[in-house]
Amino acid sequence: MSIKTMDDLFVETLKDIYYAEKHILKAMPSMAKKAHASELKKALESHRQETEGQIERLEKVFEMLDVPARGRKCEAIEGILSEAKEHMKEIEDDDVLDASVIAFAQTVEHYEICRYGTLIEWGKDLGFNDAVELLQQTLEQEKNDDRLLAQIARSMSHHPAAA
Amino acid sequence: MSIKTMDDLFVETLKDIYYAEKHILKAMPSMAKKAHASELKKALESHRQETEGQIERLEKVFEMLDVPARGRKCEAIEGILSEAKEHMKEIEDDDVLDASVIAFAQTVEHYEICRYGTLIEWGKDLGFNDAVELLQQTLEQEKNDDRLLAQIARSMSHHPAAA
Repeated sequence: MSIKTMDDLFVETLKDIYYAEKHILKAMPSMAKKAHASELKKALESHRQETEGQIERLEKVFEMLDVPARGRKCEAIEGILSEAKEHMKEIEDDDVLDASVIAFAQTVEHYEICRYGTLIEWGKDLGFNDAVELLQQTLEQEKNDDRLLAQIARSMSHHPAAA
Repeated sequence: MSIKTMDDLFVETLKDIYYAEKHILKAMPSMAKKAHASELKKALESHRQETEGQIERLEKVFEMLDVPARGRKCEAIEGILSEAKEHMKEIEDDDVLDASVIAFAQTVEHYEICRYGTLIEWGKDLGFNDAVELLQQTLEQEKNDDRLLAQIARSMSHHPAAA
């Protein structure tokens, strides 16, 4: 596959985030299961549900562009999720594990925020207005999730284990 | 290695970003070489120089904590950089390549911003005030770089190749 135009680059990046979202969807339940604090569990579970909607939105964007919805191996998200998994195996203490889960969930959010932000800018230039609207809905959700995770992290700090 | 306390988690995450920064330092010259727009070349070159200073700061933090400065394999950054490399191989058009280089450089920035943000929050809780001050200097640089890249991307849009 060769990328010749901005249209091609947009589609390839769409495939990248589509692949990433599907991997995130698969990884979420085990992260939620490992988490201890109930508000963190809840946040991860609601993120999982949101991810399903985000995948549907991406499929609509593929449809708008008349391109089959297909993923493109996203090594970045695989690296992030595999590191998260490894960390979770190494940690025994509940609070330390929660802190690590939050950090990796935020890393995932930042990856998504960055990718959607780029797609939105390119989409505007390319005149893909309907697609931009859908991608913007997802971007807002991701930003809210990131803020929520930061809030949870703050509420958990100054905890005996973190002192 | 097992992570038992927040101190351990802080040190492991420090090792992660130390490894990442060293990989970024190695990858920057080839990204700068591939880029066409002169302001983008300049931004990547100045990011490379900044990265050297950021590595030195991390080494100071290791010293403050009396821990040898050592990296820990960071699969996330390896994934991001390997994807960037692959994309660059697939693209022939100058403007499309620049757009892709900016997008990946921003992905790198977001990874760093997220990691440093986490370290700063944990460091505050742990009372590592001098370390926090150094990490904050780096975080500000990363945020500025991200803004600069976004600015360059905007100045390059509405370009014939992007239309």
